[in-house]
Amino acid sequence: MRIAVLGVGLIGGSIALAARERLDEVEVAGFDPNEAALERARELGVLDRPAASVRDAVEGADACFLCAPVTALPELLAEALGAAGQHCVVTDVGSTKRMIVASTGDERFVGGHPVAGAETAGVANARADLFQGAPWYLTPGERSSGVLYERLHRLIVSLGARPLAIDAEAHDRLLAAVSHVPHVLANVLVSQAARALSQEREALPRVGPSFRDATRVAGANPRVWSGIYATNAEAIATEIDETVERLREVAGMLRDGRSEAIDAWNDEAREDRRRLLEAELEGGPVTELRVSVPNRPGIVAQVALALGRAGVNIADMALAPAPDMRSGAVTLWVSGDGAAARAEALIAELGFPVARAS
Amino acid sequence: MRIAVLGVGLIGGSIALAARERLDEVEVAGFDPNEAALERARELGVLDRPAASVRDAVEGADACFLCAPVTALPELLAEALGAAGQHCVVTDVGSTKRMIVASTGDERFVGGHPVAGAETAGVANARADLFQGAPWYLTPGERSSGVLYERLHRLIVSLGARPLAIDAEAHDRLLAAVSHVPHVLANVLVSQAARALSQEREALPRVGPSFRDATRVAGANPRVWSGIYATNAEAIATEIDETVERLREVAGMLRDGRSEAIDAWNDEAREDRRRLLEAELEGGPVTELRVSVPNRPGIVAQVALALGRAGVNIADMALAPAPDMRSGAVTLWVSGDGAAARAEALIAELGFPVARAS
Repeated sequence: MRIAVLGVGLIGGSIALAARERLDEVEVAGFDPNEAALERARELGVLDRPAASVRDAVEGADACFLCAPVTALPELLAEALGAAGQHCVVTDVGSTKRMIVASTGDERFVGGHPVAGAETAGVANARADLFQGAPWYLTPGERSSGVLYERLHRLIVSLGARPLAIDAEAHDRLLAAVSHVPHVLANVLVSQAARALSQEREALPRVGPSFRDATRVAGANPRVWSGIYATNAEAIATEIDETVERLREVAGMLRDGRSEAIDAWNDEAREDRRRLLEAELEGGPVTELRVSVPNRPGIVAQVALALGRAGVNIADMALAPAPDMRSGAVTLWVSGDGAAARAEALIAELGFPVARAS
Repeated sequence: MRIAVLGVGLIGGSIALAARERLDEVEVAGFDPNEAALERARELGVLDRPAASVRDAVEGADACFLCAPVTALPELLAEALGAAGQHCVVTDVGSTKRMIVASTGDERFVGGHPVAGAETAGVANARADLFQGAPWYLTPGERSSGVLYERLHRLIVSLGARPLAIDAEAHDRLLAAVSHVPHVLANVLVSQAARALSQEREALPRVGPSFRDATRVAGANPRVWSGIYATNAEAIATEIDETVERLREVAGMLRDGRSEAIDAWNDEAREDRRRLLEAELEGGPVTELRVSVPNRPGIVAQVALALGRAGVNIADMALAPAPDMRSGAVTLWVSGDGAAARAEALIAELGFPVARAS
């Protein structure tokens, strides 16, 4: 099988590595308009064949992956389709799907979106196991070839990922709700807090760990997010409309002093988050443990080591130093009641106060 | 000096321990309407004198701390003022200040809010150093006695905290912006995502680490938040109005395809967050490092240990397992350029890909 990768950064490089490690008799050709990136991929031995152009890479390929910024995809897709043979499946890895799917009626194209690896960009961080167990959305268009879709599906499975077919518009609405709008809200929160702090002339804001958590993604990677906002504007705006409606309801409940309704709304959010986390982690009920620790180098390691030796894996973790930077709190999310009880006992043995979040 | 603590949970217990450890010739009396809590405080030796009633605790006291849920404070304050002598300063530790300050014109009362220790409730987690370096807002009323304010200020300093005077209304507006509205948004986000996921019939949502971060506080401790929503309703609703306006602007930019404005808005949020974090941590510029690691017990500990040995302290940390639960990403926030460079080198030596967030 011959595979073409157009764009050899983290995702393209990892596709190449995974394919070469996991498939028999595969040749991966790659091209990147950024010469330095292509040279780096050559040095690292990521590709079987660094190519001189899109046409050179795609020539004779059975499958072609477009790994470019989302706003560059339609043009790259047209070029790749022009160069690709009649039986080559062409797909992309963009974070939004409606626009690219709408840009072509070619039966060889199937949209794709692997949910993995946004953290560390660049081919130097490419790994053969980047997609292991990761969901990989596939968004075939109305005219996509069944034969080629099936080939792509099997190829995605070979890369270690779990293909999930979804309508392109549903994909974009879903991602707007669980990813894009959370980013918008983080941005709004920090700017609003910055305004409030300067207005109250608080020179040293004390925003606290919950604010840090809520705004961790504020102003996320501009190169990626510029494209997401540009290509999913309508779905994001629609979700924002819903957020605005929900916020107005809450403001209304607050102004009317409907404290029972407020409590019920807060309880519902608590349950919604627990169910989302549990469904995502698939490891049984999630327990939230809060540990008070001295904020010294090595302490978090000591806790993590003790849990590691006991076979307790930490699903999620947040460390918040107290304002004095000498003490702090670590919140741990542990899957499974048995693991949570073991973790509690071990932490108590280490002498740190630990409590289950109520 | 005689101190009375009314309510002996985490905060009341820690005030007692700190006062007894740090002050000469002090006697701390305490009362709690919850008999089990008072008994637990007695067993743990937190108090010099467990008292039989509010009146019994307050009798002869020079300072009285009200450590009850915010909605219970006005009644408790009236009772304490009735029992306290002419020269006793009475203060509280509630998270909202306008309502309690407005409830009395007594010159002996000064509102207070230590920003510490919400993570682990209960007297068993009380610590003498809970307030070390923590900001402690003081909100005197128009008629508060200068002599008594000065005594309270010195007492707060003795407990290890940093008193900050602020107008009660400004306090509540500020906390609405940096704490209460972030909680509201987390609640709204999870419920909206749960709706979207069930609507698109996605059985196994893949919400990802950024969603987990953004919603970590969703449905937070109902006992505490019920009171906060009840006593700061107007300020929270006003901040929500601003959030709504900001969100509408973003939706407008998205619908109008104003991509340069969107990029500028995203960049501004990035800068706002960086400045807020830097101001808060007071430790020089904060660098965000992203590390790809296998999601095995002990790995995070290995990284934390290596940094600890090198004297690099971690200001903030987020661990996000990949969907396969075998690989993952750790994001570390490190203060100071030197420390960040050392951390990068050490992590690379351990063999894990590490990148500065761009």
